[in-house]
Amino acid sequence: MTAADLGPEGTRPPPTRRRPGGRTARIRQQVLDAVVAELGEHGYDGLTTDAVAARAGVHRTTVYRRWGDVGGLLADVFDAASDDDWQPPDTGSLESDLAALNQEIHAALTARPSVVTALIAASFRSEKAAQAQQRLWEDRYARCEVIVSRAVRRGELPPRTDARRLLVAATAPLYHQLVLLRTTPDPHMPGQAARTAALAAAAGAFTEPPSTRGA
Amino acid sequence: MTAADLGPEGTRPPPTRRRPGGRTARIRQQVLDAVVAELGEHGYDGLTTDAVAARAGVHRTTVYRRWGDVGGLLADVFDAASDDDWQPPDTGSLESDLAALNQEIHAALTARPSVVTALIAASFRSEKAAQAQQRLWEDRYARCEVIVSRAVRRGELPPRTDARRLLVAATAPLYHQLVLLRTTPDPHMPGQAARTAALAAAAGAFTEPPSTRGA
Repeated sequence: MTAADLGPEGTRPPPTRRRPGGRTARIRQQVLDAVVAELGEHGYDGLTTDAVAARAGVHRTTVYRRWGDVGGLLADVFDAASDDDWQPPDTGSLESDLAALNQEIHAALTARPSVVTALIAASFRSEKAAQAQQRLWEDRYARCEVIVSRAVRRGELPPRTDARRLLVAATAPLYHQLVLLRTTPDPHMPGQAARTAALAAAAGAFTEPPSTRGA
Repeated sequence: MTAADLGPEGTRPPPTRRRPGGRTARIRQQVLDAVVAELGEHGYDGLTTDAVAARAGVHRTTVYRRWGDVGGLLADVFDAASDDDWQPPDTGSLESDLAALNQEIHAALTARPSVVTALIAASFRSEKAAQAQQRLWEDRYARCEVIVSRAVRRGELPPRTDARRLLVAATAPLYHQLVLLRTTPDPHMPGQAARTAALAAAAGAFTEPPSTRGA
């Protein structure tokens, strides 16, 4: 588990592994890996800059100077995660793309310990982390819009389909059930939520009325 | 704002107001109101049993003895909220019932301060609170199943419709966007999510295959 295993969609190696940038990049990677490991083991309450520095094998003043506090460390975990080349699944149909995407989310949210769930929880504690999480989610949903544009090109969906609303509808039930309602994980959940969104999309649920796009 | 204003669906007066139960019930109400007020003003980090006791005007040992700690106090806020007679909206159609339900959720999640959002955040801090929140949500979703059974009786939906999945699909986008993604509140959101779920339901998204119900 690395700092970049963030879901909803990310299970890519962190960027500093792919683009080794010398000592600074290496230290960043060590520190962010240590944040994720400490968070997974002890939760937010056990997460301290000192523990992160010790685990990463760097001097505590390095951590203070560069990241400031726990919120700054968490924010950088989110920021590092979006600096990758993750792309959503491309399986040939809207429903199966959404199902594959939901499988990634389901896996991230049901991993034990789940770094994603721990980071979501931590974002309720730190405004800096919350803002970075918002940026990461915005990035992930923006990348996923290609799922919808491909479906439009294939003729599966009408051109004026609101991609973001469709993607939120497809993925929201997983977050709601696994993070908030804490229901038992169900292997059918990813496919069912994908099918629900695809059926609603085909029925025009996400089609913007022409008026909203001007004349 | 009282301890019972919990959403997704509850904006009822707390039970102890409707069924005055003497001193014990009155103290419980004072204490739970104080928990909600302290949580709204200071968040979880400012919530202490001493501050709650002071605000409620009861002795601190009364709070310790009866609720133990902050987790116990929060759990009782959730438990008190489900001890009411809240029923979901009954407007005559599936889509408008879901839209009215979503309006209640949207109002609860966008109130400032939002007690519901503060309680969701607090549930990531206390296992006792998290379990009580799960019980309350289970209670609320169970009560909402009548929305689906009424639609089945009206012939809007096939008999073998999975009520819970439909209700989660209808409501999840609001929680996802307002609590996790923290997108800007949008007055169209409740109706759009309701329409999406109703269209998916009409297209058979929540219809259980006969095999799952046996012969």
